[in-house]
Amino acid sequence: MRDTYHEDLDALGERLIEMARFARHAMERATTALLEADLNAAQEVISEDDALNDIDEEIERVAFDLMARQQPVAQDLRMIITALHMSGDLERMGDLAVHLAKTARRRHPESAIPPELRTIVTDMGQQADVLVAKAGEVLSKRDVDLALQLEQDDDKMDELHRRMLTRILDPDWQHSVESTIDITLAGRFYERFGDHAVHVANHLVYMVTGEKPDDFDREI
Amino acid sequence: MRDTYHEDLDALGERLIEMARFARHAMERATTALLEADLNAAQEVISEDDALNDIDEEIERVAFDLMARQQPVAQDLRMIITALHMSGDLERMGDLAVHLAKTARRRHPESAIPPELRTIVTDMGQQADVLVAKAGEVLSKRDVDLALQLEQDDDKMDELHRRMLTRILDPDWQHSVESTIDITLAGRFYERFGDHAVHVANHLVYMVTGEKPDDFDREI
Repeated sequence: MRDTYHEDLDALGERLIEMARFARHAMERATTALLEADLNAAQEVISEDDALNDIDEEIERVAFDLMARQQPVAQDLRMIITALHMSGDLERMGDLAVHLAKTARRRHPESAIPPELRTIVTDMGQQADVLVAKAGEVLSKRDVDLALQLEQDDDKMDELHRRMLTRILDPDWQHSVESTIDITLAGRFYERFGDHAVHVANHLVYMVTGEKPDDFDREI
Repeated sequence: MRDTYHEDLDALGERLIEMARFARHAMERATTALLEADLNAAQEVISEDDALNDIDEEIERVAFDLMARQQPVAQDLRMIITALHMSGDLERMGDLAVHLAKTARRRHPESAIPPELRTIVTDMGQQADVLVAKAGEVLSKRDVDLALQLEQDDDKMDELHRRMLTRILDPDWQHSVESTIDITLAGRFYERFGDHAVHVANHLVYMVTGEKPDDFDREI
């Protein structure tokens, strides 16, 4: 019985790592969809999101069963509760990629990204990739030091987001209101994606150490 | 021992109801801050958000202790896990009110809401109030039928959100890019506030019945 128990606990961890892979792939394709007006990439992100939702539900089910049947305490219990939080964050990261993909699909065959913002959006996509890749690594290695780096990585995302808004607010910005709306929301979605990656890392720190990083859960 | 246990379980429910009250008050004041360019209201929302964060942390702590010490099963376990989810949603609703309050503060002494959008924003504020008030009532009465109404209430919020975007996209829209950005994000924050209220209600349904409403966790 204890063996199955530990297998189930390990499986939770594996499923979270898998979610991080899915979220990473979704975000990479969503950025491609936006920049290249790539309808196939957009559709792929939208249709593949169910997989992420399914794993989220599975994690919830397994976590519940583990708690009900095995009545874990201390670190195991912390691990299971933390897995629920992380799963919610990773599921949400998939949603944010879907939002971006839907923007790309709505504007197809045009690109939702005006030429002068291509560099910033490319950079935001890359920074999102850094964040979700690190979150995945943090999960697989249970690496607290690496986890604590994500705040700084997210600061870079926030800086890119500010630069994007500065560009839109520049008197030279001559694009349509529709374009302004799309860019405003896209910027927000990248920024939130970064926040959730940081959450995942912070949850890992709590899981391993029992201590929450400073200001955790205070970020808005 | 069991008495303390049930007191703690009841206390979790009470704290969630209290969070719904805080979130409702925050959103009502945030809407006032936006519409009336009321700096005091904005500051109040921003400074009072810590209270919501504190209760969220307290719920997490109590839930963990309950699971570790009492090893609840079946409905009690479901109640505790659900409380964690609801607490996260309600805490986030406070954050969204803070975002709106910060927009109002940034634009003070001007109002962030152009005259032609005052009616829609007033309606969105009222709809947010309906949603969070019902979520609170759902929590206090554990009323599954009422909980299932929230999807329809949220449809009204989504409709208001669409009308807002239609107004911004109208060729008559002559406001600054800054204003377009603020309104775009404000609309998004109201819409997300509604989504989280629906989540709270759906979690309550799951808590009471053990069944998730259709498409729960699939909303993006």
